[in-house]
Amino acid sequence: MPGPVTTTRIIRHENGAFQDADDILVTEEPLEIRLGHGPLDGRREFRLSVTMRTPGHDAELALGFLYTEGIIASPDELLRVEHCANVKPEERGNVVRAELRPEVEIDAARWQRNFYTTSSCGVCGKSSMDAVHAQCSARITPWGPLDVPVITALPDRMREVQTVFRHTGGIHAAALFDRQGRLLVLREDVGRHNAVDKVIAAALLGGLSLGDCQLLVSGRAGFELVQKCVVAGIPLMASVGAPSSLAVQLARDSGLTLVGFLRGERFNVYAPAE
Amino acid sequence: MPGPVTTTRIIRHENGAFQDADDILVTEEPLEIRLGHGPLDGRREFRLSVTMRTPGHDAELALGFLYTEGIIASPDELLRVEHCANVKPEERGNVVRAELRPEVEIDAARWQRNFYTTSSCGVCGKSSMDAVHAQCSARITPWGPLDVPVITALPDRMREVQTVFRHTGGIHAAALFDRQGRLLVLREDVGRHNAVDKVIAAALLGGLSLGDCQLLVSGRAGFELVQKCVVAGIPLMASVGAPSSLAVQLARDSGLTLVGFLRGERFNVYAPAE
Repeated sequence: MPGPVTTTRIIRHENGAFQDADDILVTEEPLEIRLGHGPLDGRREFRLSVTMRTPGHDAELALGFLYTEGIIASPDELLRVEHCANVKPEERGNVVRAELRPEVEIDAARWQRNFYTTSSCGVCGKSSMDAVHAQCSARITPWGPLDVPVITALPDRMREVQTVFRHTGGIHAAALFDRQGRLLVLREDVGRHNAVDKVIAAALLGGLSLGDCQLLVSGRAGFELVQKCVVAGIPLMASVGAPSSLAVQLARDSGLTLVGFLRGERFNVYAPAE
Repeated sequence: MPGPVTTTRIIRHENGAFQDADDILVTEEPLEIRLGHGPLDGRREFRLSVTMRTPGHDAELALGFLYTEGIIASPDELLRVEHCANVKPEERGNVVRAELRPEVEIDAARWQRNFYTTSSCGVCGKSSMDAVHAQCSARITPWGPLDVPVITALPDRMREVQTVFRHTGGIHAAALFDRQGRLLVLREDVGRHNAVDKVIAAALLGGLSLGDCQLLVSGRAGFELVQKCVVAGIPLMASVGAPSSLAVQLARDSGLTLVGFLRGERFNVYAPAE
């Protein structure tokens, strides 16, 4: 199974000359997520999703995806999430299967209708604009006043443990911190939304109270990341980069505190509006 | 219909104090892409995709998406792409419909099978790992030797015309240049793959020869961007950021020249390998 980085030979152009060099790339591989019940129980198995991800913490990614996309209501609905052994050799390590508890029925009609029409980025699996918003009906418990020294310390704390980024420069990170700014869990992935799904799943599995956590993401804050926070009940999300208009709107509608351009001692508060 | 930027009031933290400020956000809105034949001809209409995008050049986005995802083989298969008027008021401007020529039948079984299981980022609409690669069977005509002064001049040339980025700091860009490094078309979008789809569609509609173009993207180079270049026959892709392992692999397999970390006089050549 591939690791998070891949070494390769490249040609580097520097100081006006070409030279051969070794390079470290972030690994990107497809992960297929399947969902079903126990073997041979006669019910249908669904191939839910193929996402391009950095290998590692695949079970977390599947769990986080199923949860933040609203396909399962709680991790308790699953018995296990495992890599599939019965796949083609070239797919080994790139297919995971989530097994539902026997008593849990999934409303396949609902999410199939949403999924079959899908494209693009994290908001996948929504067949209409209604569906894009449907998942976000939950409201979260407001974070309260910002603690400036705590929040401005988060980016450095995240970068300290971003090992794959240090080696490749080509990966996103998401990190959960407690109210005092202590790092609880960090995940890196080529896909921003994957990193967030992994972090949320790790928190759920670790029994963390997401209502007392703040999430930092390395890049920009799009709608789908705010959506995932809202579904998971995370009350504060900060990004190093810019938020989008719809991310700000959803944050304001949901009571989520949204901080952007968090760099050094500077940051912007986009939500709440007042 | 919303524009590419949205203004809002925010709270800025700077020099140790909070203050109210005006801010400009990049607009992010869902776009639903529909595909069908003429009205009332009895054939089925498909709601293909919802992608989060920056409004503007929506017909290009739909055309580029349909083409680079292999749903249509050529722009000639379409009669027109237009915003739908018969939608709910809140969806106005966010739904486009591509109308196929009467004689063009689409293999719905093929792409529906691919689409119904989808999640995530640009590689959406693939129901299995096989499908992820299936679209990339085309090979492109190799670019040949790199012209260093030409390629190192591209990023500055792109930034000069990146108006939305200058105002928001939160948007991706893709730009096509000819062999002499002259800018042909630039598009900005919150979604990297959307910017590429728009640029490719603009080139197709403008009758540009994509086999003589080089594409620059502002961020990282993932698999799906290389895939789009290969499908469109663009022989050189450069990115300001890092490529992923699968992007490099696909570029090498396809004969695409892949340049990464293009900054100032420095860059890396990831493909071809020798």
